[in-house]
Amino acid sequence: MSLLVVGSVALDSVETPFGRCDDVLGGSGTYFAAAASLLTKVSVVGVIGDDFPLGDLEFLRRRGVDLDGLEKVAGKTFRWRGRYGFDLNTAETLETQLNVFEHFSPRLGAQARRAERIFLGNIDPELQIRVLDQAERPRLVCADTMNYWINSRRAELLKLLPRVDVLMVNDSEVRQLAGESNVMKAAHAAQRMGAKSVVIKRGEYGA
Amino acid sequence: MSLLVVGSVALDSVETPFGRCDDVLGGSGTYFAAAASLLTKVSVVGVIGDDFPLGDLEFLRRRGVDLDGLEKVAGKTFRWRGRYGFDLNTAETLETQLNVFEHFSPRLGAQARRAERIFLGNIDPELQIRVLDQAERPRLVCADTMNYWINSRRAELLKLLPRVDVLMVNDSEVRQLAGESNVMKAAHAAQRMGAKSVVIKRGEYGA
Repeated sequence: MSLLVVGSVALDSVETPFGRCDDVLGGSGTYFAAAASLLTKVSVVGVIGDDFPLGDLEFLRRRGVDLDGLEKVAGKTFRWRGRYGFDLNTAETLETQLNVFEHFSPRLGAQARRAERIFLGNIDPELQIRVLDQAERPRLVCADTMNYWINSRRAELLKLLPRVDVLMVNDSEVRQLAGESNVMKAAHAAQRMGAKSVVIKRGEYGA
Repeated sequence: MSLLVVGSVALDSVETPFGRCDDVLGGSGTYFAAAASLLTKVSVVGVIGDDFPLGDLEFLRRRGVDLDGLEKVAGKTFRWRGRYGFDLNTAETLETQLNVFEHFSPRLGAQARRAERIFLGNIDPELQIRVLDQAERPRLVCADTMNYWINSRRAELLKLLPRVDVLMVNDSEVRQLAGESNVMKAAHAAQRMGAKSVVIKRGEYGA
């Protein structure tokens, strides 16, 4: 079994009451690959700028992660800057620089197109749809999303959901998607929007 | 067994993505009494202004809650205004009006002084200490607090902790109190500050 993940590979700057880091490795594609590579073979599709410190991904390569689908283009890497308070579940976004992500359109190679298991990391739902359009025979499609897309790309997200087997979102996100405060009712509403299954993540408290 | 609670009795105005309410019954003393009265006899010590709609407390009286220790003084009732996002665990304070709470000093009657079980609701730690100074023979003292007091009344809070059997705070609060991100380590640090036991609440996710 192998997994294809499409997501962001980013440079994050994060503040918490306990410390701060600037331009450290982040992104939904990176985090997913780091976790999934402990269990199976992972291929990453994404984009980085020419300022990206490729050495940061060496630990993924050593775990057998296939990074051939990671395009390097002229420009700056996607950057996110955020702050956490003492509640480490809740990030406040201070700045998002799309940079090379602004004109990114995922292109799947011959092998990636035949992927049977696809994880659509938290990126623009329009790009998530373009990935599925290129997939030849996906057996399992999982997708993540976030408040930013639920708010600004609702129409695209609603087009995506019927093509998703497992929607993985947190409790805030499913409430926002469904316009319903009760998470169980909100999960059922997300299923009525087309997602076959819904997994509600609860940050450090589990799923 | 009976319980003495000292806490705020407030009028809250709350916004969420799902609705809003203005000047509705709130306060740490009120919420504690509402919950504890399902299990035992509760006496409330607190203060309200002359604008307070006493009928709002009728449901507590019907449950046998003793409100004789609730002083009514000239002026406006304590008010809190806040907003919740889709993450219903995290409130953003928009406004706090201390009003009659500003000059409140809890006075325990003869019976209240003999209370064996005391819950110090989330109020200024200096007032929490004054309550304990009047208690003759408390066997169990529990205390709540919040980010506002941890930040602005740290010295008073550190004086209170050695007199507390059970400190009940949420994960953010214990992190802030201890200056430590790991909640287990933070709980141990709070014990070293004097609290005999520490209960970490996790909002809707349990304790």
